[in-house]
Amino acid sequence: MSSKPAAIIIGVGEERGIGAVLSQRFASEGYYVYVAGRTSEKLDRVVRNIKLSGGHAEAVTVDVTCEDQIIALFQYAFSEKDTHKAPELVVFNVGNNRKIDFLKLTAHEIEAFWRTGCMAGFIIGREAVLRMLPLQRGTVLFTGASSSMRGKPGYAHFSAAKSGLRMLSQSMAREFGPAGIHVAHVIIDGGINGEQMRMHAPERMPATEKNKLLELEPIADVFWFIHNQPPSAWTQEIDLRPSKELF
Amino acid sequence: MSSKPAAIIIGVGEERGIGAVLSQRFASEGYYVYVAGRTSEKLDRVVRNIKLSGGHAEAVTVDVTCEDQIIALFQYAFSEKDTHKAPELVVFNVGNNRKIDFLKLTAHEIEAFWRTGCMAGFIIGREAVLRMLPLQRGTVLFTGASSSMRGKPGYAHFSAAKSGLRMLSQSMAREFGPAGIHVAHVIIDGGINGEQMRMHAPERMPATEKNKLLELEPIADVFWFIHNQPPSAWTQEIDLRPSKELF
Amino acid sequence: MSSKPAAIIIGVGEERGIGAVLSQRFASEGYYVYVAGRTSEKLDRVVRNIKLSGGHAEAVTVDVTCEDQIIALFQYAFSEKDTHKAPELVVFNVGNNRKIDFLKLTAHEIEAFWRTGCMAGFIIGREAVLRMLPLQRGTVLFTGASSSMRGKPGYAHFSAAKSGLRMLSQSMAREFGPAGIHVAHVIIDGGINGEQMRMHAPERMPATEKNKLLELEPIADVFWFIHNQPPSAWTQEIDLRPSKELF
Amino acid sequence: MSSKPAAIIIGVGEERGIGAVLSQRFASEGYYVYVAGRTSEKLDRVVRNIKLSGGHAEAVTVDVTCEDQIIALFQYAFSEKDTHKAPELVVFNVGNNRKIDFLKLTAHEIEAFWRTGCMAGFIIGREAVLRMLPLQRGTVLFTGASSSMRGKPGYAHFSAAKSGLRMLSQSMAREFGPAGIHVAHVIIDGGINGEQMRMHAPERMPATEKNKLLELEPIADVFWFIHNQPPSAWTQEIDLRPSKELF
Repeated sequence: MSSKPAAIIIGVGEERGIGAVLSQRFASEGYYVYVAGRTSEKLDRVVRNIKLSGGHAEAVTVDVTCEDQIIALFQYAFSEKDTHKAPELVVFNVGNNRKIDFLKLTAHEIEAFWRTGCMAGFIIGREAVLRMLPLQRGTVLFTGASSSMRGKPGYAHFSAAKSGLRMLSQSMAREFGPAGIHVAHVIIDGGINGEQMRMHAPERMPATEKNKLLELEPIADVFWFIHNQPPSAWTQEIDLRPSKELF
Repeated sequence: MSSKPAAIIIGVGEERGIGAVLSQRFASEGYYVYVAGRTSEKLDRVVRNIKLSGGHAEAVTVDVTCEDQIIALFQYAFSEKDTHKAPELVVFNVGNNRKIDFLKLTAHEIEAFWRTGCMAGFIIGREAVLRMLPLQRGTVLFTGASSSMRGKPGYAHFSAAKSGLRMLSQSMAREFGPAGIHVAHVIIDGGINGEQMRMHAPERMPATEKNKLLELEPIADVFWFIHNQPPSAWTQEIDLRPSKELF
Repeated sequence: MSSKPAAIIIGVGEERGIGAVLSQRFASEGYYVYVAGRTSEKLDRVVRNIKLSGGHAEAVTVDVTCEDQIIALFQYAFSEKDTHKAPELVVFNVGNNRKIDFLKLTAHEIEAFWRTGCMAGFIIGREAVLRMLPLQRGTVLFTGASSSMRGKPGYAHFSAAKSGLRMLSQSMAREFGPAGIHVAHVIIDGGINGEQMRMHAPERMPATEKNKLLELEPIADVFWFIHNQPPSAWTQEIDLRPSKELF
Repeated sequence: MSSKPAAIIIGVGEERGIGAVLSQRFASEGYYVYVAGRTSEKLDRVVRNIKLSGGHAEAVTVDVTCEDQIIALFQYAFSEKDTHKAPELVVFNVGNNRKIDFLKLTAHEIEAFWRTGCMAGFIIGREAVLRMLPLQRGTVLFTGASSSMRGKPGYAHFSAAKSGLRMLSQSMAREFGPAGIHVAHVIIDGGINGEQMRMHAPERMPATEKNKLLELEPIADVFWFIHNQPPSAWTQEIDLRPSKELF
């Protein structure tokens, strides 16, 4: 049996997005990475890049709002294998953001944001802990936002989902920390210099001024750092923003 | 046309519960009260008591998770009437609490808590603001809990819903306050000396020691007080607990 | 012996300021009010107004940063009297605000803000509780600000003092609440339509637009309301802002 | 001129304390370290250990509550030197904790805790920023505690000082972040496996059970990590506790 550690990164999309860069980072550290997301073409591209760099990864197409698919993903990743040990890291990085006028917000929209942004996080968190608890070790990391802590006009739907996810992470940390499972919440505050912004909001991409956007690699450093903390000094919450972001 | 003000209290159940006592209080202050909740027998009892005391009220059976029913309730209550003016107060008091072991929590349960505890609050808040905004006045009050701010073991589901509701109330307050709509969040921290506890957790009813439980009338006082604040000094959030509650 | 209740309001200045209006309010409710502050002319004017309205009050000149003077004030107010019962309300309303550039802020200035804004609050809180505890009743109210919760550029000194005061109020509430002493923190967020602004920042006085400034009477209503809460439903913290204040 | 970077660590005491271990860590990374604290014998021991390991450091005895001594320390450390570049890191790690009954707390005690725990932090922060700003780079790190966020019985004095320090760090971060100065607050929640506890509270040292106390080296890792974050992804606040700490 291989001694290679393993990670499950859920919410992988564009090649230059948090999920993809996290996958690359853990692969480059020697992890066998389950690269999970909605769109198989995107996952395949991330996996190909990892393999080209000598890493080990495989794509798993999953609809995070579908409990059965998530359970199947965990059963598959945690089944006994020659290729790697039981996954010791699970990252929940699902969820996008969009401003919506409160009075035009539909019940369908607020539900859709909650299903992907909060409920999926619950199912993934529960499935992770169920399998990590017997081993008394493992890390579960959630990606948060400034909306996790504060409700602002135009973002009620996003904030309702993100604050719920934050409460899940706190509940889990308080309950499973003493049993050896490290649960943490990484608050990403600010725009990200990645493909999503390049495609959907190019006007927000400051051509010349540095440090107005978050860079992906230092975000990945934080997830890596938190995962490597020994149980004698664990972080439950950390924020991250570019130096020129007002807050 | 009558000059009687009107209120819509949503989430009315037992006669000795927050919703019922709020209804009685606003009726006793001269409001025409729409007493809304799931179980018509309970609503009828509350309305009967109000009428016996000389007040005006009517019961509206509504499933708060059903958008159509909520919209129908608002259309009905806001339609032109001889009996009262356009409702100026809406209270969202829905949602119960129950400890559930995180690892046994089902997706169905977390969704059910969210539908009643958060999504219903959104629909009700939106329908209220849509109708109050043209009048540039009105109050929307949400009932919160200590779980609105903190995730604790056994309450992940409740906290995920309640924190979402809190973020909705913050977003709405920030957006619609300057337009004249007062949105506030009342944090109820502690057990309530009411029927629910008497029936479901009698062992938590301290027979002799006072001030270990919240009393209903002073809770109603707070809703009444907040509703009557002039726009020059509005509260967005207030907490309430019995003096002997540890926090 | 008179059955008149008594209150000590500390931090009374201009006739149209929080301290003065609180004094007038409690006097009009039948309280014997100790009107305490730095400048005897101002106190005398407030006391005169109270007496003209048929109320009972007396001025006590006190430097709140001087422990001996505070102790003397409490010994005097709590000594056995024909005129009133033991004071059951103490309000700490001391402290002004001023923007200061962080790099120009002196140790003397940050200390001065802390002495009046936090340390004085501690001494007053302690002296109040020491005398209220044997009676197992009493209310201690502290005036807070948005800077009590958040540090912003230009207000480091104010925030350092105000957050300290908030922590004192929390510590006291948690410790002495179960023993019957109600300690609460009233967060005043926004400019106040009073003499201070009229004199020192008249340009901030919006001549025409209403609800951009806090009015004094509704602030006094909140202190009065909190003081009258029964122990079965106490508030520890409440915020207040005009409807047009952005937050 | 040497290309060696430099750091100023203020609040160094016991060999097995945060300040000492931070000094050793930065020295081992190639920094010239100013090891500053109250007791020269303790500082000398830390410096000697650093030198024995091949590092570079010097002791500076300083009373952090004395503005002149702090200014002298900064003038000295920032004066042009052959031995190192302008200091790029300043750590404020001052302040101890002790439970004190609120009703027995003296004005002298609350002031002493504030002078060392908050005011000293202001002076040090201001002196650091004044010298770092022209270079548009530098890190200022403050050590916080759970009392920075919450007031608990027996810790009013500590909480009043620590929350003030937190507000200072927030104000500074918001003001000087865009100018290139990284200001962060590290919340240490839990007992530390160090000399202080060994000497003063040996009964709290769990002989057998691991992860009930914070270990020093992982704490130092966090300071090192935060200092090395690029401006495109800065942390303002992070918490740290042992896995078995309840929170």
